[in-house]
Amino acid sequence: MSFQITLAELAERFGLQARGDGASVVHGVATLANAGAGQLAFLANSKYRGQLETSAAAVVVLRDADADAAPNAALIAKDPHAAFAKISALFEPVPSRPAGIHPSASIDATAKISPSAHIGANVVVGANSVVGDGAMIGAGSIIGEDCRVGDGCELVARVTLVTRVTLGKRVRIHPGAVLGAAGFGLAMEAGKWLNVPQLGGVKVGDDCEIGANTTIDRGALEDTVLEDDVRLDNLVQIAHNVRIGAHSAMAAQVGVAGSTRIGRYCMFGGQVGIAGHLTICDQVIVLGKSMVGGDIDQPGEYSSGMPATDSRSWRKIVARLRQIDSMSRLLRAATKPDPTKDSE
Amino acid sequence: MSFQITLAELAERFGLQARGDGASVVHGVATLANAGAGQLAFLANSKYRGQLETSAAAVVVLRDADADAAPNAALIAKDPHAAFAKISALFEPVPSRPAGIHPSASIDATAKISPSAHIGANVVVGANSVVGDGAMIGAGSIIGEDCRVGDGCELVARVTLVTRVTLGKRVRIHPGAVLGAAGFGLAMEAGKWLNVPQLGGVKVGDDCEIGANTTIDRGALEDTVLEDDVRLDNLVQIAHNVRIGAHSAMAAQVGVAGSTRIGRYCMFGGQVGIAGHLTICDQVIVLGKSMVGGDIDQPGEYSSGMPATDSRSWRKIVARLRQIDSMSRLLRAATKPDPTKDSE
Amino acid sequence: MSFQITLAELAERFGLQARGDGASVVHGVATLANAGAGQLAFLANSKYRGQLETSAAAVVVLRDADADAAPNAALIAKDPHAAFAKISALFEPVPSRPAGIHPSASIDATAKISPSAHIGANVVVGANSVVGDGAMIGAGSIIGEDCRVGDGCELVARVTLVTRVTLGKRVRIHPGAVLGAAGFGLAMEAGKWLNVPQLGGVKVGDDCEIGANTTIDRGALEDTVLEDDVRLDNLVQIAHNVRIGAHSAMAAQVGVAGSTRIGRYCMFGGQVGIAGHLTICDQVIVLGKSMVGGDIDQPGEYSSGMPATDSRSWRKIVARLRQIDSMSRLLRAATKPDPTKDSE
Repeated sequence: MSFQITLAELAERFGLQARGDGASVVHGVATLANAGAGQLAFLANSKYRGQLETSAAAVVVLRDADADAAPNAALIAKDPHAAFAKISALFEPVPSRPAGIHPSASIDATAKISPSAHIGANVVVGANSVVGDGAMIGAGSIIGEDCRVGDGCELVARVTLVTRVTLGKRVRIHPGAVLGAAGFGLAMEAGKWLNVPQLGGVKVGDDCEIGANTTIDRGALEDTVLEDDVRLDNLVQIAHNVRIGAHSAMAAQVGVAGSTRIGRYCMFGGQVGIAGHLTICDQVIVLGKSMVGGDIDQPGEYSSGMPATDSRSWRKIVARLRQIDSMSRLLRAATKPDPTKDSE
Repeated sequence: MSFQITLAELAERFGLQARGDGASVVHGVATLANAGAGQLAFLANSKYRGQLETSAAAVVVLRDADADAAPNAALIAKDPHAAFAKISALFEPVPSRPAGIHPSASIDATAKISPSAHIGANVVVGANSVVGDGAMIGAGSIIGEDCRVGDGCELVARVTLVTRVTLGKRVRIHPGAVLGAAGFGLAMEAGKWLNVPQLGGVKVGDDCEIGANTTIDRGALEDTVLEDDVRLDNLVQIAHNVRIGAHSAMAAQVGVAGSTRIGRYCMFGGQVGIAGHLTICDQVIVLGKSMVGGDIDQPGEYSSGMPATDSRSWRKIVARLRQIDSMSRLLRAATKPDPTKDSE
Repeated sequence: MSFQITLAELAERFGLQARGDGASVVHGVATLANAGAGQLAFLANSKYRGQLETSAAAVVVLRDADADAAPNAALIAKDPHAAFAKISALFEPVPSRPAGIHPSASIDATAKISPSAHIGANVVVGANSVVGDGAMIGAGSIIGEDCRVGDGCELVARVTLVTRVTLGKRVRIHPGAVLGAAGFGLAMEAGKWLNVPQLGGVKVGDDCEIGANTTIDRGALEDTVLEDDVRLDNLVQIAHNVRIGAHSAMAAQVGVAGSTRIGRYCMFGGQVGIAGHLTICDQVIVLGKSMVGGDIDQPGEYSSGMPATDSRSWRKIVARLRQIDSMSRLLRAATKPDPTKDSE
């Protein structure tokens, strides 16, 4: 029998106000459109209030202003999405990850593993590394030398911490992520590339999340740093010596070049590229596919993504854009009172 | 001794028309330029017909219209590229993947593995997962809880299916791909990010192919879906709740944000970015590096990629583009019969 | 006790000129700003010469022209960055990687492993593959069939060589990289995709470096080739049959489509996209996020990346850009002596 809970219990546990029969039983969550008997859904945006009419959800989490339209019982929340997130966590299947070390794991004699940690199949832990209380190191993960995994961290599976990586508490890292690889440190000498040793590490604050196949290089001389509660999606690239402020978030395929410093509460859309050695202040939002080529010192929203149009029109636009400088000169000449004064 | 076959046998096996000595032996395939004695090549585009003159290929697969120019024997095909693909498969080395479970694999007691499946070294299969007949699970792959791998699937090596991933038949997945990770589901509460549990799964249709290091997140409440015969190249990102229609293909480094629905027979060039919550109809082609920022409801070709030019010219273009609004106003003022009527 | 060396020994070992007390001991390296007693720093750019005043570095590597400003001892170098790279390598911790095969590794009976190679935990080596002298194959790496790993190569950890991959000497590959996967070779037949077998391999020259989670597909009929000393950063995609000339470098998230040939000493910024079947000559620099859509036959710097601006201004620019063709026509009509002659 799966988990179930009553409306009254939900209201009490999450400090919400219940409307309707407190004995109603909830045994799952779903979208408004798909929720059926015994299922709880949510309405975050009053714009979609019309969906309440046709929903069969047993309980809907919503704002007070929308509560009269709930089809059955309701839970009133100031932030229905956040309340729903917390309620739906009750229904998340939790895979069994017992404390202890799988017999196929290879643990260096100098590593320290908390007895309450779970070490999965084929995990490798190198010299002088530490795994904290309640940490879950999923199958196939590799932890190199001199790493520290804080209490309650979850390396879902097949995560690599190369060397000198320190994770705070409750950090979650998805499969394929690589932290602490030697970044792109090159010097050209006599026509050949010379590697610049990367002697720093990676420092990740508490409550960070790092997406699948994301890469975070270790610092050259100092550390690459993610402050607390930074959230990176999949396939993100963070180069050496970057610093990302607390609570900032980056969508998939964002790339940040070396030594750039990013403020707190920033948000970056998918495929944004950020040049190296920049400073970006707090509360900056950059929309998807934009290129950040200079410092940003004012909070606000920035962009340079060009929306696609039919290729025939686009080709014409590109051709004209190549002429924009001569267009501008022609226009200035035509609109100046005396073109002989145009001295550009 | 490697595989060999005669011209007559090839013609019969693939339903093609042979020209020349049916007893000619083919023991390999190559490009027109490099093919030597005993090798078969193809000509798909009559534009390159001139290459036939200098080719030493023993057999060329080509269209009827080009057959007279074949240097030696020929096989006539309506679609020479497709015919060549099928013929060359005869010469592909097939690594030995015997049925059975490698002794280093870790299989949960509740998992069901077909006796005809191959389970490679260090593979991990979690609770309640199923591997179908003839499936090949390459070394280092990790299959989490509640996954189903259909008959004839091939996980080349080091593939991760996190949880609730269902693969149809004959799905091929390349190394490093991660399916079913928890996507980027976040709500901000009291200045901190809150994870929104990702309770859905990933559903992949028959005959799909998924490239190396590509990531496909599981759905939040419902499933992320790839219909039959979808082809994804390397380093592609598919966010939660995306649906991709049958026979659509995406080149490398494409990113699709959450909940977008893509039609059938669509094609996306490399590095295309597609925003979230969009609907894209069937038979849409988007050229490389474009950004799709809105719904597309007409089949056809779309683009917004800007071709590189010398940096000096490009800097001038960018500077002028920043002035385009004032250019436009100036132009309108100058060309209106009575500029006092310009009320913008 | 960690490694230490005197100023005089450094000068002799690296052929540099010392200024100051030759008996000064150096036991580590740091940035100018952070270096303390016993630490060596460098100044590559005279622009930052002011930092010398406040630096506590025991030794600074710098140009002759800046030597008078060194706070303590100095080492004079023509190229301080390169000299520093070589000196700092002395202080890089070297993890223990003893020769021999870890008991958890799975080595095919037909593979040949040099007795001086290190084979880490859970490594898999397939049929007919060869690992050269002094090579280090890190934990979790998978080497498929018919691969050759040259002398002195380092596969840091969890690297996959799928099949027919040949590495020269001293190649370093970072975790998660996948070489030799079947590229995106597709033909459409009767409304379904058909795989074109990928029969070639990957050939990597001496001294190449390949970043974390980078993917290099094997060739279709011939090989995908990296010449000597090519440097690829993380999350780069190299499609089948691409050829990259010696000493060229690509920053993170660059993508190169199939069959493109790139010259020697080229450099590509992050997120650059390069279309297929192109030829790019030697000594081409392409700045970050640009799209290369055609051949380049002149050395020099190219770009098409658009720097982000505030979203309100950007939306206006995009709207006006859509009108650029009519702007151009209007301008030409207004500035032509006789507009009736405008025949476009």
